[in-house]
Amino acid sequence: MTITATTARERMLLAKDASLRVGLLDDAAKQRALRAIADALESATGDIVAANGDDLSRAVASGLSPAMQDRLRLDAPRIAALADAVRAVADLPDPVGRVLDERTMANGIRLTKVAVPFGVVGSIYEARPNVTVDIAALALRSGNAVVLRGGTAAELTNAQLVRAMRGALRAQGIDPEAIQTVDDFGRPGARELMQARGIVDVLVPRGSAQLIETVVTESSVPVIETGAGVVHVFLDASAPLERARAIVVNAKVQRPSVCNSAETVLVHREAAATLVPAIVSALQAEGVVVHGDDEVGALASDVVSATEADWAAEYLGLEIAMRVVDDLDAALAHIREYSTHHTESIVTDDDAAAERFLAEVDSAVVMTNASTRFTDGGEFGFGAEVGISTQKLHARGPMGLPELTSSKWLARGSGQVRT
Amino acid sequence: MTITATTARERMLLAKDASLRVGLLDDAAKQRALRAIADALESATGDIVAANGDDLSRAVASGLSPAMQDRLRLDAPRIAALADAVRAVADLPDPVGRVLDERTMANGIRLTKVAVPFGVVGSIYEARPNVTVDIAALALRSGNAVVLRGGTAAELTNAQLVRAMRGALRAQGIDPEAIQTVDDFGRPGARELMQARGIVDVLVPRGSAQLIETVVTESSVPVIETGAGVVHVFLDASAPLERARAIVVNAKVQRPSVCNSAETVLVHREAAATLVPAIVSALQAEGVVVHGDDEVGALASDVVSATEADWAAEYLGLEIAMRVVDDLDAALAHIREYSTHHTESIVTDDDAAAERFLAEVDSAVVMTNASTRFTDGGEFGFGAEVGISTQKLHARGPMGLPELTSSKWLARGSGQVRT
Repeated sequence: MTITATTARERMLLAKDASLRVGLLDDAAKQRALRAIADALESATGDIVAANGDDLSRAVASGLSPAMQDRLRLDAPRIAALADAVRAVADLPDPVGRVLDERTMANGIRLTKVAVPFGVVGSIYEARPNVTVDIAALALRSGNAVVLRGGTAAELTNAQLVRAMRGALRAQGIDPEAIQTVDDFGRPGARELMQARGIVDVLVPRGSAQLIETVVTESSVPVIETGAGVVHVFLDASAPLERARAIVVNAKVQRPSVCNSAETVLVHREAAATLVPAIVSALQAEGVVVHGDDEVGALASDVVSATEADWAAEYLGLEIAMRVVDDLDAALAHIREYSTHHTESIVTDDDAAAERFLAEVDSAVVMTNASTRFTDGGEFGFGAEVGISTQKLHARGPMGLPELTSSKWLARGSGQVRT
Repeated sequence: MTITATTARERMLLAKDASLRVGLLDDAAKQRALRAIADALESATGDIVAANGDDLSRAVASGLSPAMQDRLRLDAPRIAALADAVRAVADLPDPVGRVLDERTMANGIRLTKVAVPFGVVGSIYEARPNVTVDIAALALRSGNAVVLRGGTAAELTNAQLVRAMRGALRAQGIDPEAIQTVDDFGRPGARELMQARGIVDVLVPRGSAQLIETVVTESSVPVIETGAGVVHVFLDASAPLERARAIVVNAKVQRPSVCNSAETVLVHREAAATLVPAIVSALQAEGVVVHGDDEVGALASDVVSATEADWAAEYLGLEIAMRVVDDLDAALAHIREYSTHHTESIVTDDDAAAERFLAEVDSAVVMTNASTRFTDGGEFGFGAEVGISTQKLHARGPMGLPELTSSKWLARGSGQVRT
């Protein structure tokens, strides 16, 4: 499927135009489109793997880290998994057309608030080609056109993925301009995307805290902020050792590279002598470096002295910060100061403390006695996840397909005028 | 109630701090606070009217238009009406704490999505002192602190209103720092407000299209865009004359200065010979200047020749644009080109045309056979209106108190970890 539009703006306008028709597709047509995309990705495996090989060679030559190389790599099994993920999105309920509110005015006008697609969803992300397919599938399933801007290191791979997806749409009789990339326009293309207010309806950045900060700062298009997680676990005075240890270790170690993994543990002073030595040992046994304040250092061995930077760090690896606090108030104050408002959890047997924590912590997800790793669209039962919103407007916490829709009011009258 | 904070940033930080406590107030405490504010405004009538007199003298001297002077004026009856409006907001249901979703994970973790206050709501608006009270009351009722920035011409009036409201909060034992103004810091204060991401949670501009455009462009704080309305009425081929005339005249004339009044009438060519002469006459009889295309000019007298600028004009007065179009498709294309996505209405007896119009027009409110003047929080039964959102994120159309809340997920576990 050849792309002929010659400027980023032209492509975005084509996406806007295509969105008018994609937004009116019925459930069955959208399901067929996604299944065709899944099949096309599998059929194009050879081309995709070849392009990915070229991207990987460039990445190796430019010294990209092994972890980033792994995120960039697509092989046949990963492409098959991507295609299956697209089929799973096809199986989700259509979020468009849901009736969100209904009322009838005294004069007889019938009001219906219905879920409608945004129109055009933009996404700016890093060199993870799976996001290209993931966002395109979620956007189309919710009736939106999509404009993609992935990391430069994945440019050749993304071009093949977009080519396969556009071809699948055309074969289904759907305007292929509903899927656009501005990758080949480099940074100026990304800037145009961020400034395309009136054409692009919402922008979802995915990636590092720095990428998200850039998008939030430079965009006039409304942004849904996702991701960054300086996530806290507070061990209250009443926290039982076994439960506290299991939750802290799981929250840090089960998958340390993701946003819902814990970065800081706060320990109530009354419980510190019991909890700190055992939990530091358990973390260290899993290879975690513990950055502690002086009290933690006095209670456990091999603790690295924490600095101010540690309280704000999103390690995303086998490191954790630990601090002893006076009480619940001090824990809440620390969280207010350093949290990114993603997820915080309290371990406690004190119901009053649990309820205060739930009420007063200002985060997308606030937990009692559970691992922070549960903040996840799949775990919440959404079937797919668009991202985890850390802002308060429109969506907060794990976002499913419904969060990729807006609404409009339909007002059906019979000649009413206002008096 | 003296304001001691000496910088705009310091005041916003005080508002953020106060929001922690205001957000936890129960329904009864918020109702008491609003009733105390209403009483305090009435008690301060003398001071407010005196300050308003000074503002008005400056306004007259600087040549402010009589219409703007009228919007700026506060007298005892208007202050009483403002106080009553605050009491009406007190009577509305508390939007905080509503359960928006509930689910239980297979592992037993109970999830509850509850409505919570945003935290700090900012508002930038023009020289209409009633907005000062209106926004403060709506923000407090929904558990938010508020930072106000009104038009310079109303600065002395706004200072007295804020003083009275803060005094009422203090008398109720509520932190008066929950109500802040940055009026006295001029444009740099407004800029600081727009850039206060992380302190101010959402910004609601109210006023002219130009003011809203500035706020959207310059803010890093998430904005809810309100207001601008280039509103269309489409008279379909089957539109009966009496109904079409009543709706067009009402939509234009009943209150021409507001955003939901009609600015452009599109007429299906098949009905033009019948509808145009009668409707132009009816509009002219109400003092409306009609800007028409050549076909309209040929069918009716005293029509001013429309230019491209007329199709994009939000007259907000006794002027209207009128154009003959080929068919429904042409009407939809014109609306796509010029609408501000506020409200559009079709007058028709053709159900298929009505349903296509409802489905394909991308506006906050899409109507059949009704006056566009019904797009209004009061008419929709919301009891109060924060504004009319013309964006697609978070809120669309008339906004009530629930739109001044965000949500958070509470996850109650008993030691669950992820495997």
